[in-house]
Amino acid sequence: VIDQLATDLVAALGEDRVITDRGALAGLETDWTGRFRGRARLAVRPASVGEVAAALRVCAAHRVAVVPQGGNTGLVGGAVPLDAVVLSTTRLTDLGAVDELAGEVTVGAGATLEAVRRHAAAAGLAPAVDLASRGSATIGGMIATDAGGIHALRHGSMRHQVRGIEAVLADGTIVGGSTGLATDRPGLHLPSVLAGSEGTLAVITRARLRLIPVWPERATALAAFGDLASAVAAARRLRDRLPDLDAVEYLDAAALALGAARAGQGDPFGRPAAGVGRGVASLLVETAARRSTLEELGAALGSLPGLLDATVVDDGPGRRRLWAIREGVTEAIAALGVPHKLDVAVPPAGLAAFVAALEPVVARAAPDARTFVFGHLALGNLHVNVLGPAPDDDRVDDAVLRLILEHGGSIAAEHGIGRAKARWLALAETPAETAVRAAIRAALDPHGLLNPGVLAP
Amino acid sequence: VIDQLATDLVAALGEDRVITDRGALAGLETDWTGRFRGRARLAVRPASVGEVAAALRVCAAHRVAVVPQGGNTGLVGGAVPLDAVVLSTTRLTDLGAVDELAGEVTVGAGATLEAVRRHAAAAGLAPAVDLASRGSATIGGMIATDAGGIHALRHGSMRHQVRGIEAVLADGTIVGGSTGLATDRPGLHLPSVLAGSEGTLAVITRARLRLIPVWPERATALAAFGDLASAVAAARRLRDRLPDLDAVEYLDAAALALGAARAGQGDPFGRPAAGVGRGVASLLVETAARRSTLEELGAALGSLPGLLDATVVDDGPGRRRLWAIREGVTEAIAALGVPHKLDVAVPPAGLAAFVAALEPVVARAAPDARTFVFGHLALGNLHVNVLGPAPDDDRVDDAVLRLILEHGGSIAAEHGIGRAKARWLALAETPAETAVRAAIRAALDPHGLLNPGVLAP
Repeated sequence: VIDQLATDLVAALGEDRVITDRGALAGLETDWTGRFRGRARLAVRPASVGEVAAALRVCAAHRVAVVPQGGNTGLVGGAVPLDAVVLSTTRLTDLGAVDELAGEVTVGAGATLEAVRRHAAAAGLAPAVDLASRGSATIGGMIATDAGGIHALRHGSMRHQVRGIEAVLADGTIVGGSTGLATDRPGLHLPSVLAGSEGTLAVITRARLRLIPVWPERATALAAFGDLASAVAAARRLRDRLPDLDAVEYLDAAALALGAARAGQGDPFGRPAAGVGRGVASLLVETAARRSTLEELGAALGSLPGLLDATVVDDGPGRRRLWAIREGVTEAIAALGVPHKLDVAVPPAGLAAFVAALEPVVARAAPDARTFVFGHLALGNLHVNVLGPAPDDDRVDDAVLRLILEHGGSIAAEHGIGRAKARWLALAETPAETAVRAAIRAALDPHGLLNPGVLAP
Repeated sequence: VIDQLATDLVAALGEDRVITDRGALAGLETDWTGRFRGRARLAVRPASVGEVAAALRVCAAHRVAVVPQGGNTGLVGGAVPLDAVVLSTTRLTDLGAVDELAGEVTVGAGATLEAVRRHAAAAGLAPAVDLASRGSATIGGMIATDAGGIHALRHGSMRHQVRGIEAVLADGTIVGGSTGLATDRPGLHLPSVLAGSEGTLAVITRARLRLIPVWPERATALAAFGDLASAVAAARRLRDRLPDLDAVEYLDAAALALGAARAGQGDPFGRPAAGVGRGVASLLVETAARRSTLEELGAALGSLPGLLDATVVDDGPGRRRLWAIREGVTEAIAALGVPHKLDVAVPPAGLAAFVAALEPVVARAAPDARTFVFGHLALGNLHVNVLGPAPDDDRVDDAVLRLILEHGGSIAAEHGIGRAKARWLALAETPAETAVRAAIRAALDPHGLLNPGVLAP
């Protein structure tokens, strides 16, 4: 059966589009963290929407499951195949002309965020979503997971950037290709249905993204607070006071120390006691505007209760130094082991209580675990990273996800549900919501071929 | 049969929730413009989500169509019943406590935008979407039509404001009620599916909205340009230069004159020749920030090619005077007759060409018509208003909508498709997209009871 599938795919797409070599498949079978491993029957790398449609028609005829995969930077096992065909979008990298008047561009789903950034920069524009994995993460994957990133508090998540979309249904039907206007909203808004659908409704092949102006003046600060509650209150005051606020990133003491070490830096405040003390909550804050905002940011920070220390810069090297701390955290953790990555959210008013409860809960589930907490504080989005438990030991996952639900939070924020959290989905939605999701899924993919096991038990 | 329906609804909801008096029904059977008229079998005004569910269960048992209606400010006949039950949301007006740290509030679908504004203002916050009909338009209707309004260029349309939603399916099933976090995205993102669905997928009963800070410093300008192309280019330059840009509203010469007259004002520039000259394109521009932006806005305007004249103010009375011109246009047109309102969008690069082609096209379809063009220029969203043709004469609608498609534009932007544009939907989407829309609709409402005739032929 497998041979006939490969034969049919080669006949439809050509030999160079079909990967059956087990060595070549290995890189597509394991996620970035190494925690989730699967097995691909084979992989296809179509180079056009027509080839995607052809591949899906063949797979549908064989009733074979298909797992779309972009840059494979996902953190919830959503692109890991379980005896399925991997449909890699990495050849769909076309970059359309930038419409400067509208501030829009159409790009292939396999284009990396960094490629789109460079492309848009030539017109003085930029994608509104940014994240540390920009060099590998693809636009299609970012839409499918509704990635948020460091600027979501100002510009929204990927869902809010997609003005038009082209995709292929499980049966090979191509949909989309509308004008891409922000205001193009007759009928069904396909971008909104597909954003966050994690490859379960269609394979995204192309998207029209809104672009934002590149503000030349950026001021960045790293600020330490005596406790998390003060940092949460500070985020609100900064949002109220600074219309140009771009980022409010949180680092707990462990994440700050790890990120600073990874970036080859000592204590970022130059005062060891304040910077990395246990319990200290640090915020990486950034403004972006046309005019200088350094003084404004400094003044806003200076007025905050609970502030221990702050460093404010607006020069390139200084800003890169501070961001290197934040962006180094994920890789630094991965270098220490295979982390359990729990991307959760809790209303800001409950953040401090959740984090306070986290340590004993993790300790009970995994006594020797090391925990790092960081994330997008202004939106209540925390990345709880736990090192220690074996990849397939999910007791700590269970404990943390149940704790977040007890605190009125969400078990998923910007990484999706994937396979990793499918087990807990029933705790996070009502049976009626599960039924609605299943009904829409069945309407578009009646044989359940697209990413089975993702967003479902 | 009708009597039995009324009897069952009274039994389920109580007598005071069911309206059968023809006089009382009359106000629910005609839209705001007077162009679209229908007939209600009866109306229900449930006061809770439980009552909405009960009403829908009774209607489903009778296989009777249901038309949800909020403030009845829609402009495409989407809330006009054709021998259906009107489900009025106007009793669902509860306003939850504002979560100041998160910047969110949960409100009933029948709450008016103005009521939510007043409620949020007490916490120094505001809904991000604003529009002239704020006193009547309800949150539920604004979500169902994905209203854009005057600040969409900065904050996005209603779709981007909804963090959680509660709704009732056609069979009476209640869905939603999640945490409402911006980052609450496990499973299906119900707000995204229901936003823009125009009452065809579910009856929205409650929504959790994001709120934005109220920026105290606002500067407003009315600027006249020699031609529309200059105004379009100016909008781009203003967006690039002013991070705090809140609104870029367009008024053609006819709309400006009408709006100024309605507001009891003469020529707003104090120089008759420049202000209302034929062909002159006026922009109403606003910035909102924490610090004064008057000089910044003035300087940005001063640098624009094609600028004829501008008045810039930042005092309350001056700002209200300028906004009165823009907000008076819709009512001023309605006072002259029953308008054909064509809410369309075209990529900014094609705006001037579309408007240039508009006059002869309208003249051919309706030789004695008067045309007014205004709208949200930065997003390419124009409101083409035509006075003259009889309400049921849709030749001018046909001509304008076909013209917009020829220019690569969209037949609907922020008002929806409703009944008014259902006929042209097939021109605006592919058969595959029609099928996807129908499949999702059938999955949630298998008997087609919710707003039949809307978003469908």
